[in-house]
Parts: sequence; C-alpha cells; structure tokens
Amino acid sequence: MNATEAATAVGSVGLVTPQRIAIEQPLPLDCGRTLPRHELMVETYGTLNAQRSNAILICHALSGDHHAAGFNSADDRKPGWWDNCIGPGKPLDTERFFVVALNNLGGCRGSTGPATIDPQTGKPYGPDFPLLTVRDWVRSQALLTDHFGIARWAAIVGGSLGGMQVMQWAIDFPDRLANAVVIASAPQLSAQNIAFNEIARQAILSDPEFHGGRFYDHGVVPSRGLKLARMLGHITYLSDAAMRAKFGNDLKAAPTFNFDVEFEVESYLRYQGQSFVDRFDANTYLLMTKALDYFDPARDFDDHLEAAFERTAARFLVIAFSSDWRFSPARSREIVKALVDAGRDVSYALIESQLGHDDFLMPIPHYHDVMRGYLHRIACAFEAAGDGVSA
Amino acid sequence: MNATEAATAVGSVGLVTPQRIAIEQPLPLDCGRTLPRHELMVETYGTLNAQRSNAILICHALSGDHHAAGFNSADDRKPGWWDNCIGPGKPLDTERFFVVALNNLGGCRGSTGPATIDPQTGKPYGPDFPLLTVRDWVRSQALLTDHFGIARWAAIVGGSLGGMQVMQWAIDFPDRLANAVVIASAPQLSAQNIAFNEIARQAILSDPEFHGGRFYDHGVVPSRGLKLARMLGHITYLSDAAMRAKFGNDLKAAPTFNFDVEFEVESYLRYQGQSFVDRFDANTYLLMTKALDYFDPARDFDDHLEAAFERTAARFLVIAFSSDWRFSPARSREIVKALVDAGRDVSYALIESQLGHDDFLMPIPHYHDVMRGYLHRIACAFEAAGDGVSA
Repeated sequence: MNATEAATAVGSVGLVTPQRIAIEQPLPLDCGRTLPRHELMVETYGTLNAQRSNAILICHALSGDHHAAGFNSADDRKPGWWDNCIGPGKPLDTERFFVVALNNLGGCRGSTGPATIDPQTGKPYGPDFPLLTVRDWVRSQALLTDHFGIARWAAIVGGSLGGMQVMQWAIDFPDRLANAVVIASAPQLSAQNIAFNEIARQAILSDPEFHGGRFYDHGVVPSRGLKLARMLGHITYLSDAAMRAKFGNDLKAAPTFNFDVEFEVESYLRYQGQSFVDRFDANTYLLMTKALDYFDPARDFDDHLEAAFERTAARFLVIAFSSDWRFSPARSREIVKALVDAGRDVSYALIESQLGHDDFLMPIPHYHDVMRGYLHRIACAFEAAGDGVSA
Repeated sequence: MNATEAATAVGSVGLVTPQRIAIEQPLPLDCGRTLPRHELMVETYGTLNAQRSNAILICHALSGDHHAAGFNSADDRKPGWWDNCIGPGKPLDTERFFVVALNNLGGCRGSTGPATIDPQTGKPYGPDFPLLTVRDWVRSQALLTDHFGIARWAAIVGGSLGGMQVMQWAIDFPDRLANAVVIASAPQLSAQNIAFNEIARQAILSDPEFHGGRFYDHGVVPSRGLKLARMLGHITYLSDAAMRAKFGNDLKAAPTFNFDVEFEVESYLRYQGQSFVDRFDANTYLLMTKALDYFDPARDFDDHLEAAFERTAARFLVIAFSSDWRFSPARSREIVKALVDAGRDVSYALIESQLGHDDFLMPIPHYHDVMRGYLHRIACAFEAAGDGVSA
C-alpha cells in the first residue's frame, strides 16, 4: 500500500498540510529570558465545531513533532507518528474531534528552536537558544490555543514527556482543559532516568564536532554523540523481554573476533542511531532531556504532588503499560494516588503489554479501547449539547 | 584508619606483594591464534597446604584484577576489591584456604594485554591483541593452575563475568575443581545486556582519539568514549531504587539552565567515568565486553545448557541478588534449573538486597553467611582428612 492508497483507506486523515503559526506575543520563560515572538509548526485534523468545544491538543514526546497523522505528500513512505490513533473512527476520532498537533518550541521540525536563524546574528541560535521547561511549553501552547480561539480544550493528550505537558497544563491552566489524558508518564524523573539523560548529554557535549553547540557554523553535526544518545534511548524504550523476542540474543554466525555486527540488536541500534542523526538536531535533543530532568510539578508545592494537583479541575485518564520500565506503572500510580489524595476525578488503566515504553505508540486493542471509550463519552456530551461537527 | 592500621586489624590479609607469573606454554585461543607465552599478575593469600587441597581461585569481573584483598603498600588508601570477603575469619578464610586472584589475560593491570609491548614491533599490541573468550581465560587459568602444582581447586569463585568463568571451568575441566561458586551471573547475555555493551563499544570505537586502537602511539587515550562506557556500566550496576536512595532525584539548587551538574547522580557518574579513564585501558574494555557477549556455554551443545552442565562434576553454589537487574535472579534460576536438569548437586541462595548488581561486592550478612557456611563445610572435609594448614 503506498501513501496515496493508505491516505484514502478507511481511517486515514489523508493528505495534510502543516501550517507555520507565528505567535507574536512575548513568551516569558522559566530561565528568566523572554522570547519576543516564536513560530510553531502545527497540523490539524478534523473540523473545529462552531462552539469550539471539540478540540483535542496532542503534546509530543522527546523526538515527536507536529506530523502526528496522515501524509504530507503522496510520496510519503510512512504516515505521522500516531496515525494508528488519530483519524476517522479511530480513538481520537476526527469525525467528532478537531485534533491539533504541534512541534514544540525548541524543536527541530520547523518550530523556533536552536537551529533557527537568530535575527540578531544571522546565524542559528545554537547554544544561545534558551533551555526550556515543560512549563514554558505549556505557556507557548496556551498562546497557540488563543490563536485558535479555543477557550477550553475538550482534552489534552500526551504520552511520556507529552504526558508531563498534560499534567502541567492541568495545574497551570485548570480552566482551559476539560480532560487530561496522561499516558506512560511520570510525575518526575527517577535518578536512573536522569542518569540515562546525563550520559546522552555527555555523549553529545563531548563530541568534538559539537563545537560548543555551534556545529552549524562548522558545517558538521555531532553525529557520533547524537547516535550514541539515540541508541541509549532505544534501550529504555524496549523491555528486556521485547528485545529478546525481537532480536534474540544468539550470534548471527560464528564469532568474527572483531567489532562488526554479530548480534541482531547491534544492527538495530546502529540503524536507529544513524537514522536519527539524519533527522534530529543535537541542541534540541539536549534541550528535551533537560526539560525532562527539570519536570517536577511538586517542587513548587513543597514537594507535595497532591498540592499541585489541587490546582487542577480536569478529569484525568492515566494509562500505564505493564512492560514499560522507563516510566513504569508504579510511576503512573504515583500520579493517580496524588490525584485521588487531591480529590480529583481520575480513571486509571494498566495495559498488559510486551514491548516496553514504546507501547504507548502501538495500536494495542485494550489501550485503544480505553481511549476510545473515554473520548466517546466526551464527544457524546458536547454532541448532546448540540455542539457536534455538522456533517 | 590508615592502610597500615587496617592491614594489621583483625580480618585483613595485610600487606601483599603481587607476583608476575610467566606462562611459557603456548595458549591456543578460540579465535584460531595461539599466544606463544603470556604473563599473569597474581596475588595469593593464606598458605597452600601440603596436599594442595585447600586452594580457591577467584575469577574477576569486567573491571576487576588480581588485587582482591589487603594492601600493596602502606600508603594505599583502599584495600583490594573483595577485601570484605577474603581474610582471616572472613567467608574466604585465609587461615584455612589458599586464595589465588589473578588479572586475566587481556587485562590492563600487568597481565599480558593490548597495552603490553608486542616483541615483534616494539609497540603495544593495541588492536592486534586477539579478542578473547571466557573459554580462553579458563584455558589460561588452567595453565596457571599447573604453575601452582594444583591438581584440583577446592573451589573456584566468581561474580558476574567471574561467575561465567566458574561455569566454563566446571564444563571444560570437570576434574579440576571440587566446587563452583557462581555469583550474580547469567548463562548468556540478554539482548539488553548486549545492547548496553554495544553502546559502550561504539562510544570507544567512535572516539576520534581511539585511533583504531593505536592511541598509545599517539600519546592520547579515548577518554571521552571510555568515560561514557563506564558511566553506562554504572547505570546497570545499581538498581533504580538504590540510585534514588543514594542520590535522590531532586535538583541540588535552582535550575541553572545550562549543562553543569544539577543532580547528585550526575556528579557521581562524571566522577566514576573520569576516575575509570585514569586507570583502565580502552582496548581491554572492548575485549571484556566482547568476551561477555560471546559467553554462551550452551552454544556447543545445540543450545541445551543442561547438556553443557552434564559435563560438570563440581558441586555448585549459585547466588543471586533480589535488586540486581543486570543479571537478575531469573538468570541465576536458569543456571540452577539447567544444573538440576543435568542431575547436578546445586545450592541456590537468593539474597534480599537493595543496591543492584554491585551487591555481589558488598558485605551483606546473609550473603557472607551463605558463602561462609558453604566454604566451611569444604574446609571441614579436607581438615578431617588431615589436610589442614599447619598452624
């Protein structure tokens, strides 16, 4: 099936054109600086109803972007990163909802970020681009929300780092979202999570071709470091059992007694690492890992997560995956417990799964059924109020 | 307490002088090459009895060496790496046993290895040094055994990669060891274990200062790569909970919005990485990780581990640690099951622990009691036969 066939198949949003949206309001950042303006790449799927009550915002994870569903051209080999979940009749049903996906500020897919030309110097910002927090992203996304004239999202949905943005939204803008769907996430990184991030950063920072973040000026990229960082990430995205099931752990042939690929998992990691270098910016990767490390909504509330959640008004759906060891179900239960302690309305689903953290991107029937059911009730509510999308 | 005081305290083997032992017999290797001669650095503790029946061999793990107990000089700040377990009255009781520890072939502590001068070129072997297998080490250790005139070890003991050597000994030289003590080990690496090794190797191999393994000739070391490799190793040596207990996961101060150390675990990893660079050889590290990847005693027996173990004659003690996720208790149970299926005599102890894989180096009372009890019965047997060490 090629892109044209897939795009016209049942359930696809089809061909999509990304939009570049200029946010002209100043954006104050947690680091103390203010961005006078910034641009965000956005895709939308479905139709915003007249009451603007059927909008869902998708927050992306570490390496995600605005291209969440459909195809950007007839030549595309693969659809957007969450195509299995977004489309007509899919859990995020574009016949009922207006779905917005963006590339976050600091990203490398067209939104303002480290690789953007700094108008003051005529060169890419590089290391002069500010490090960001999840709070900064949410503030930027709130300005985007204004741009769309949306007073209140029907739901904000995100997995992993995206789930952190959802929680921060619910805390910082309680009246601007009705539902918060937090998938495979955590209320704060563990020391081990931070350790992985630190090694990924050191791999990039110590690459001689990083040039202090000004590699653009040298016509190179810190490919060795970025490749190592990505390989390391992949270890945390898969469970040990899934790696074994996918790749086995037997030699492909007799030992070579050199450093060529001898195990399937080595090919996989080298391929994943290399293909990431070709499509991702090293400064953005550093920025994303720091945003993860900094995320800790309890910090502003004397380390009491439930106090942070007392600020929220949304209904919550928290989803965890049994095989996820990056953000294990125990981390989701911390979120659920704090929400319950705060007296908030929360549903929790533990999905039996095999793959690991990456399962949040997979079309696991139980997972999609939970999302579908939850979002169906939301749609029924605004449709009953006469706010449906006119056919 | 300084080294002199510590060395004279109860339980210490005191000052120890390492020996360099030349093995003049040719050593055929699994890669097909033969080393005409090699040298091994060795330390011994206690006294070999007249019947040579009280000898214990210690096989070291990835970064271990021959300096397992006591002090090499009065200025030493720290004793050998397993000092808490080896000494008078300790589990490996040097008043009853003669304990031998070596630096494996390919090591970087004085045994013949990649940093050794190749007599044919007058330069370090570097990448010309052969990659080795656990089988090669065991063959080398068997020649060392001949050197000591020991027909049969009372026990061979090792943790992690050391435990793999113990298993290989029992399979390849069944009549040359009475007891096999396999601690925190695995019958073969998992795909995830291999993935970690592959990333560590790529970090070293891709460091521009690696120079294809001939960095010695350039007066540099691939410090960035070796540092990353070691940091990564440390993630696998500690449990997530232990990392959190040791370092917490809160910022040390307000966010800096740069890449300075902001979390305790970052300081720890950077320190561990740097100190490793100062004391370890990058080619040895590569060689050790390949030996780990290659270890798979079942491979020669149609992937039937129990068939491999049918070759053994030793009694086995297998010890695992509850918090170890590098080589989890499930991996030890695979070993135990295969030994049971092979009809062998095996004791298994699961030690409740907190730290992770590193626990095999810790003086956990239950762990040391199990070892002490097991070795006590061995000593009682040869002492009852009149083979004790004369006072």
